[in-house]
Amino acid sequence: MLELSEIYGHIQEDLYRVEDLLESMCLVNFPHLSALLGHSLRKGGKKLRPVLTLLSGKFYDYDLDRLLPMAASIEILHSATLVHDDAIDKSSVRRGQPTVNALWGEEQAVLLGDYLFAEAGALTASTGNLRVIKLFAETLKTISSGELNQALNAFNLEQSPDQYYERVGKKTAALFAMATESGAVLGRAPEESVQVLIRYGYGLGIAFQIIDDVLDFTSSEEELGKPVGSDLTQGTFTLPAMLLLKRYPRKNPVTRWFRSRTDPADARQAIEMVRNSPAIVQECFQIASGLCEEACRDLKLLPACPSRQSLYDLANYMVQRRK
Amino acid sequence: MLELSEIYGHIQEDLYRVEDLLESMCLVNFPHLSALLGHSLRKGGKKLRPVLTLLSGKFYDYDLDRLLPMAASIEILHSATLVHDDAIDKSSVRRGQPTVNALWGEEQAVLLGDYLFAEAGALTASTGNLRVIKLFAETLKTISSGELNQALNAFNLEQSPDQYYERVGKKTAALFAMATESGAVLGRAPEESVQVLIRYGYGLGIAFQIIDDVLDFTSSEEELGKPVGSDLTQGTFTLPAMLLLKRYPRKNPVTRWFRSRTDPADARQAIEMVRNSPAIVQECFQIASGLCEEACRDLKLLPACPSRQSLYDLANYMVQRRK
Repeated sequence: MLELSEIYGHIQEDLYRVEDLLESMCLVNFPHLSALLGHSLRKGGKKLRPVLTLLSGKFYDYDLDRLLPMAASIEILHSATLVHDDAIDKSSVRRGQPTVNALWGEEQAVLLGDYLFAEAGALTASTGNLRVIKLFAETLKTISSGELNQALNAFNLEQSPDQYYERVGKKTAALFAMATESGAVLGRAPEESVQVLIRYGYGLGIAFQIIDDVLDFTSSEEELGKPVGSDLTQGTFTLPAMLLLKRYPRKNPVTRWFRSRTDPADARQAIEMVRNSPAIVQECFQIASGLCEEACRDLKLLPACPSRQSLYDLANYMVQRRK
Repeated sequence: MLELSEIYGHIQEDLYRVEDLLESMCLVNFPHLSALLGHSLRKGGKKLRPVLTLLSGKFYDYDLDRLLPMAASIEILHSATLVHDDAIDKSSVRRGQPTVNALWGEEQAVLLGDYLFAEAGALTASTGNLRVIKLFAETLKTISSGELNQALNAFNLEQSPDQYYERVGKKTAALFAMATESGAVLGRAPEESVQVLIRYGYGLGIAFQIIDDVLDFTSSEEELGKPVGSDLTQGTFTLPAMLLLKRYPRKNPVTRWFRSRTDPADARQAIEMVRNSPAIVQECFQIASGLCEEACRDLKLLPACPSRQSLYDLANYMVQRRK
């Protein structure tokens, strides 16, 4: 399997410039806010979304000055949603670091998230491109309504895989699709190619979230950078848990945990059962692989270039990653 | 004193159309979200900010189709900040109604606020005017950083009136100024007139917040639609409390409350002292009056028309209002 650094190779210099731009966003005339921004924007992460923007912008008329603010905007928008998610879930660790709410309280986390949304909006606006500006606002609407839906359905066992895919489409894939669409639009791709890249981003996003949801069961706290099984603990009914329930419909610990929420041993048992069910894990990976294959199907319509290869490689990486 | 309905008279029909647009925003294909939106967008309020947009757009080339989404956007942005403020402050009542967080929990309130920010952004984007789009994003940055500053300085006695004005400028006046600027820009006002209207909006916003902060002490729970003295209780150091402390620097209940936060009787006593200090209340009203006078100074440079008179009337209303 290729490492991300290998896949990113030919745009690594451009990605450094995105990171420089993010760094410069942290320098504001209010030291406390600078500290909050530094904490939420400097810390690692895979930078998948800005990379998708850069790659999607490379097929026709690559102009880094147009793409940079967009790529940074998408990473900031993503950070904003994480800051709010952590505040809402009262999570204390993310990417192995204490969360904003753990360090400064929920109040500061909510307001910082608002600031980050605005900063992302300002960067998008600075592209001067009305299509991506409208896309930005619509995507944030989609993400928020997906998150609302997830929160509303916490601990609800009456959810089908289709509802799961719809929710994941809103809360995760919409942002991936925005990353590819905005890159393509700012890279002056013809509309047909824009649509190919939107479908790629959306499919990749669903696959990414499925794998994320599997890893939440099967990975280690060290690799996740947060506690194992936090989705289930918080009542988020993800695909692996759905498959577990389908396989063992009676006396299932997921059912007990969602219904009573009294004994954390139920949640731990459910996590163990998924970890020890290669069939469930494999089914999730197969579904994700199928989505990635589908996502890549029309990439052949795009001009052959290193970026196209990177998109194929990213799709492969997505279903092989273990963290 | 003129009632708001009299001041709004000549744009009342247009304001109804803003309300219709807000109403239509509540109809989404997700019943739970529709309920949340209905609760936060339908409920009363003075509609000051959208009115400022409409009035500011009336001086030159009044095109309601351009102004409507902007006016609605500003009201929605305002609602979003209120929803987040209430969630953060754990307030249970606003405008005499239970808050979103009281009815559906803080999690839903944070996510609804995010959705509202996005909806406001989408409406602003729909104007297709890059200047107002950038203004929108920058204003949200300003408001959030003002709110962060206020939260950071909760229960901090070491704050000067100048710091208070700066904070109020960010958290309140910036939105008033955005309301007038966006109306003027979309109403194709010449730049000089835009600047006159920005200064008007900003000054009016500071005056509005000063009076709001006075009424938080002197009004009744019924008129406020929320508990009396909630600023002080939550540690927000506003102008009336600053003046009280200046007048009685020793053994002041504000000092005791901010330092110990143990005995609510301290806060109640401080509230009583302001209520019984006509000099303090009068000083605040005088400062607000001065700001309104200053804000109106250059309105004479604008074409004489009913809107100009309404702006004068609004400034007068601002410093005479008792709720």
